[in-house]
Amino acid sequence: MRVAVLGVGLIGGSVALAARERAGAEVHGWDPDPDAVHAAAGRGALDAGAASLGQAVDGADVVVVAAPVGALPAAVGAALEAASADAVVTDVGSTKRAVVAAHDDPRFVGGHPLAGAESAGVENARADLFEGATWYLTPTARTRGTGLERLYRLLASLGAHPQAIDAETHDRILAGVSHLPHVLANVLVAQVGGALASEGERLPATGPSFRDATRVAGANSAIWTDIYLSNREALVRALDEVSERIGAVRASLAAGDAAAVEAWNEAAAAERRRLLGSQLAGGLVHELRVAVPDRPGVVAEVALALGRAGVNITDMALYPAPGGGEGVVALWIAGDGPAGRAQEVLEGDGLRVTRA
Amino acid sequence: MRVAVLGVGLIGGSVALAARERAGAEVHGWDPDPDAVHAAAGRGALDAGAASLGQAVDGADVVVVAAPVGALPAAVGAALEAASADAVVTDVGSTKRAVVAAHDDPRFVGGHPLAGAESAGVENARADLFEGATWYLTPTARTRGTGLERLYRLLASLGAHPQAIDAETHDRILAGVSHLPHVLANVLVAQVGGALASEGERLPATGPSFRDATRVAGANSAIWTDIYLSNREALVRALDEVSERIGAVRASLAAGDAAAVEAWNEAAAAERRRLLGSQLAGGLVHELRVAVPDRPGVVAEVALALGRAGVNITDMALYPAPGGGEGVVALWIAGDGPAGRAQEVLEGDGLRVTRA
Repeated sequence: MRVAVLGVGLIGGSVALAARERAGAEVHGWDPDPDAVHAAAGRGALDAGAASLGQAVDGADVVVVAAPVGALPAAVGAALEAASADAVVTDVGSTKRAVVAAHDDPRFVGGHPLAGAESAGVENARADLFEGATWYLTPTARTRGTGLERLYRLLASLGAHPQAIDAETHDRILAGVSHLPHVLANVLVAQVGGALASEGERLPATGPSFRDATRVAGANSAIWTDIYLSNREALVRALDEVSERIGAVRASLAAGDAAAVEAWNEAAAAERRRLLGSQLAGGLVHELRVAVPDRPGVVAEVALALGRAGVNITDMALYPAPGGGEGVVALWIAGDGPAGRAQEVLEGDGLRVTRA
Repeated sequence: MRVAVLGVGLIGGSVALAARERAGAEVHGWDPDPDAVHAAAGRGALDAGAASLGQAVDGADVVVVAAPVGALPAAVGAALEAASADAVVTDVGSTKRAVVAAHDDPRFVGGHPLAGAESAGVENARADLFEGATWYLTPTARTRGTGLERLYRLLASLGAHPQAIDAETHDRILAGVSHLPHVLANVLVAQVGGALASEGERLPATGPSFRDATRVAGANSAIWTDIYLSNREALVRALDEVSERIGAVRASLAAGDAAAVEAWNEAAAAERRRLLGSQLAGGLVHELRVAVPDRPGVVAEVALALGRAGVNITDMALYPAPGGGEGVVALWIAGDGPAGRAQEVLEGDGLRVTRA
C-alpha cells in the first residue's frame, strides 16, 4: 500500500512513521515547509520526500491531509484534485463539519484521531501515537465503500480504533468535551483575574478548583482560533445551553431554594460518577486522597509503592499545603481491585488514605 | 491563654491541637455530637471536653466556632451569649457576609482559614494544618481592638498568616476562585453527560480539558449547599458576569470574527500567566511536558529524579495514552532556576521535555 501524507508535523509525521513501521506501507510525504519534509525524512518517517503535493499524491492508495483546521477545506480540495480515481483521501482535523460539507467527493472521508498533541513538530512524532486511540471517521452516504474499508484497515494497523460518526454529532460531542471546557476556562481566568486586579488582591494561595478549571485557559491561539471558528455552530449552541443551565441554578440561588441547589449538586455528582465509569474500561474509577508531607520525592514514594503493587494511576492531582506542611495527593484508580490494593499498600506505609 | 473550640471536626480539631501544641493554650472543646468530643480528647486535642457549650466557653479568652456554614449565625450567637465581656469570638466558615451581618458585637471577628479540608473528622486533624495558610479575618468598625489583636497573635502562633479583609470582598473573591469553578464544573458535567446519553455515545477516552474542568463537580452536598446559599448574592453576580462574558465570545463566534476570538484567547493566556505568577512566591511558574511510557512506576521515576535534584513540583497532571502507549506528564515548577534544572535532569535521563 502506498500512503501520501500531506503535512508532516506531529500528527502527519506520526501517521507516516506508524504506516511504515506497522502497516508496511510505502510513505511519500510533502509539506508546504520544505524543512519539515527534510526533518521527517531524517526521522525515518518517509520513504520519499516529495517536492510537490502532486508528486506525493501520485500513485497513492491513501492520502492523509494533516493541515491546520482552517486550511483543511482547501488542502483536501487540492489532494482530491491530485489523487487517482481509486484513492481514498482523509484528514485529521479536530472539527469535521466544515471540511465534510466542502467536499462531496466519494473518495473523501473526514477523520479525527483522539491522540495527544502535547508538542508540535515531527521531532515529537511517534509510531505508537495512535495505539488504543479512538479515531473518528465521518463517512457520508456518498462515500465509496472500498475506500472506507481500506482506510479502516490502515488505521486499525496503526493501533487505532476507528469509529464511524456523522460529522455533526462529532462536532457536537467535541464542542462539549473539549471546546466548551476551553471557553469556560478562558472566561473564568479573565473574570477572576479582572476581579482580583480591581480589588488589589492577589490570587489566594489556595483553590485547587480554580487551578484545575483554568489549566487549559489561553491554549495555543494558532490552533485554537481555527478550532473555535470551525466549530462555531455547535459551540454557540453549547454556550446557549450553558447559559440556560447557569440561569436555572442562578434562579435557585436567588430564591434561596436549598432543596433545588442540593438536588442540582447531587445530579452533577451522579453524572460525574457515571461519566468517569464509562470512560475507562477498567471499571469504576475510585478517588483516593493521600495525606503527605510537602517535600521533594514524596510523590515518587507514593507512585513507586503503587507501581510495585502493579497499580496504575489513571489520574493524579497534587494539593500542596501553602506553607510547605502536609499536603494531599489525589489519585484516581480504575477498578475496585486496584483501588483497594492501593489503599492497603499506602496505609501499610503509614499514610492516611481516604476515599472521596 | 484559654481557648474554647465549639465543633471539633477536622478544622476545629486542628485549631485545638495547634493551640495546645504551638500556642501553649489551655483548650476546652465542645461539640453537639458527644462522640466527637470524646474522639477529640482521645486525639490529645483538648485539655478538657465540655458537657455543654456554656461549660466550654466559660472563662475562655478566645472562642472559635467551627460549625457548618448554615449553622454559623446561630452558633456564633450562642457563643457570644455564653462568652465573657472580655472574650473574642471567631468562626472558620467559608463565607463571611451572612455571619458578620448577623452579629454586630464588638467581641466578634469573622474568620476563614484557607486550609485543606480533604477529609472530615477530628481523626484527620493536624497541628500543622494552618502552617503558612492565609487566614482571613473580617473585622468591622465595631470590632474591639484588643480582641482582634489577641486573635491575630493566636493565629500567627498556629503558623497561619492572618489577613484582614472586609466580608463582602472576601465573599466576592471566594465566589470567583472557589464557588464559581464548582458551579461551572456542575454545569459542564450535567450538560455533557446529558448530551452523550442522548447521542448514545460514551465519553471519548480523551479530553484532559474536560476531566480537569469537572474534577470538583458534585462536591459534598452537606457542605456545598450551605456554601452556595450563604454566598448566593456574590455568586449570582459572578454568574451574571459569566453569562455576559459567554455572550461576548458567543457574539464573536457567531460573527465568525477570527481576530476577536484570537484576541480574547490571547488575553486569557496573559491573564493565566499573570495569575500563576502572582500565586506563588517562588517566581513565575513554568510548565514542562514530559513524554513517558504509560506504566506503573514511571511517575515515580520522574518525581524521584526531580526530588534528588531538590526540585519541588508545584502541580502535576497525567495524560496517559488511551491504549497504554506513551503518555505525558505535565509538571508545573515555580522559579526559573528550578524549572531549568528540572528540564536538564529529565533530559539527562533521556526523556523528551518541552516547555509549554
